[in-house]
Amino acid sequence: MADVHAAAALLSAVAAPTPVLTSAALDRRTRAEVWIKCENLQRTGSFKFRGAYTALARLGAAERAQGVIAFSSGNHAIAVATAARERDTPAVIVMPADAPPGKLASVAALGARVVTFDRYTEDRFALTERLAADHDLIAIPPYDHPDVIAGAGTTTLELLEQTGALDTLVIPLGGGGQLAGAGVVTAAESPATRLVGVETATGDKTRRSLRAGRRIRIPVPRTIADGVTGETPGELTFAINRRHLDDVVVVHDHEILAAMAWMFEETKLVVEPTGALGIAALLAGRLEVSDQRLGVVVSGGNIELRRFHALMRSLAAGR
Amino acid sequence: MADVHAAAALLSAVAAPTPVLTSAALDRRTRAEVWIKCENLQRTGSFKFRGAYTALARLGAAERAQGVIAFSSGNHAIAVATAARERDTPAVIVMPADAPPGKLASVAALGARVVTFDRYTEDRFALTERLAADHDLIAIPPYDHPDVIAGAGTTTLELLEQTGALDTLVIPLGGGGQLAGAGVVTAAESPATRLVGVETATGDKTRRSLRAGRRIRIPVPRTIADGVTGETPGELTFAINRRHLDDVVVVHDHEILAAMAWMFEETKLVVEPTGALGIAALLAGRLEVSDQRLGVVVSGGNIELRRFHALMRSLAAGR
Repeated sequence: MADVHAAAALLSAVAAPTPVLTSAALDRRTRAEVWIKCENLQRTGSFKFRGAYTALARLGAAERAQGVIAFSSGNHAIAVATAARERDTPAVIVMPADAPPGKLASVAALGARVVTFDRYTEDRFALTERLAADHDLIAIPPYDHPDVIAGAGTTTLELLEQTGALDTLVIPLGGGGQLAGAGVVTAAESPATRLVGVETATGDKTRRSLRAGRRIRIPVPRTIADGVTGETPGELTFAINRRHLDDVVVVHDHEILAAMAWMFEETKLVVEPTGALGIAALLAGRLEVSDQRLGVVVSGGNIELRRFHALMRSLAAGR
Repeated sequence: MADVHAAAALLSAVAAPTPVLTSAALDRRTRAEVWIKCENLQRTGSFKFRGAYTALARLGAAERAQGVIAFSSGNHAIAVATAARERDTPAVIVMPADAPPGKLASVAALGARVVTFDRYTEDRFALTERLAADHDLIAIPPYDHPDVIAGAGTTTLELLEQTGALDTLVIPLGGGGQLAGAGVVTAAESPATRLVGVETATGDKTRRSLRAGRRIRIPVPRTIADGVTGETPGELTFAINRRHLDDVVVVHDHEILAAMAWMFEETKLVVEPTGALGIAALLAGRLEVSDQRLGVVVSGGNIELRRFHALMRSLAAGR
């Protein structure tokens, strides 16, 4: 918890607290009092900036001079590149050659060196490790790192300051960093809060791991939620989450799409598929929340207009 | 100004202050420090709730028992219906029969009585007047009313509290209520602030009226910005705006569309065409704002996903 407070102090200089919004329509649908924590409005478009910046800012000056390296095709890439520029740190971002050209260009425009690789023939971990060793770079992992978790925990710290005590807190669950941070914070500040993670039906690696009592590995999940396609929970995040996580529920892709459309029209917010997991679980009635004070984290909003349209067309076609 | 403070006190019980967001991308594009006042995140999806609720709440109990009437096909309809429900006041909303079915249904679902008319054969003013007289209803006009202007002024009051002094404040300009409220507030609290209204190129009724020195009437403007299709400025709003408004600039429909797309991808906000007027003026370079502290009001976000897609397709086709 001290690490989360330290991260909050670091972040206060570079990121405003994100808004918490309410929606009469969502309250009616859920029969609860719901607060939406808008990490899609966070700097870089997702909560990932919190962890990336915290990890980077806690490096010593000598370490920062060496430079950092991160592997990501998405939000973590933009977050690390932005944090690195903010702290004058050289950054190498390893991205798939077939990542959206706009994303490759954005990361390069932030001043990071982009190294691409072929997803079908090259091993990204081996490549990242070799680059780190060859150039003496410090890796900033996307979730399995104490500083990244502490940074992610500031979302929940802020939320509780903004809303007061909550009965339930619902959070998208991928590698588990956002949830691990939330677990640390609720355990310290609001132990009665029920903590719920949301996975996709095809990618319920943490739910299965919790049942098995150990981290299990699943096949690469097929889902539109491109931020939660990992095969196994993080080691550190799972150790924390198995202590604090009260429940995991799952949603289907069509429910994620419906939630994105609903958020667009009812709350005027652009939410990416992974960011909509929590809202999707609420709208699909996957949780009993009547009369509760409820928090839900919308974790990101990075989606190109073109892809958004294509997804919405597939929703309309499926109806 | 006392009326604006009174309105702010009334509204504090029913509407949270809307967030003010910043965008590094917008700052780079404009070379200014820009604060976006998000009235698209206001209750009912637009700033109209502020004026409608203020006017309704300032009626006496006996007047409220009589009921209210409003004419609008859009944001003012939803705002009055919501305010009326909030204050247990019967409400009649006069709407065109060919308004989007979803909007007719929303207003009815709020408990208002919806009266439709044929836009091509019936006179909406005569109809509204007759209904008001027959049923002893009190009219809540969309902008040309002191309480509506005072309510709208709370947007600027809040914004200045959130940002401190501003060099320039940019506001969409239709009937002129939001701008008149802003003029009252900046004159009292921040007289050095340059106040700029944004009209469509086809609907520059206030710009022309200011040049003529009197309210002139223009043909019904053809524009995608359906919130600013009036033919003449309000009487009261024009009297205020001619004193406080420093400049009017205009934007074209394709610039509005580009601004909506830009807001979607860069700020994760859904903005309706009228709401995007200010951002469109900034992105189109219609204003010299380098190195300034700048506020811009995004006045609403009520747009169905289907219409948003159709508009974005027309933008792509026009590129």
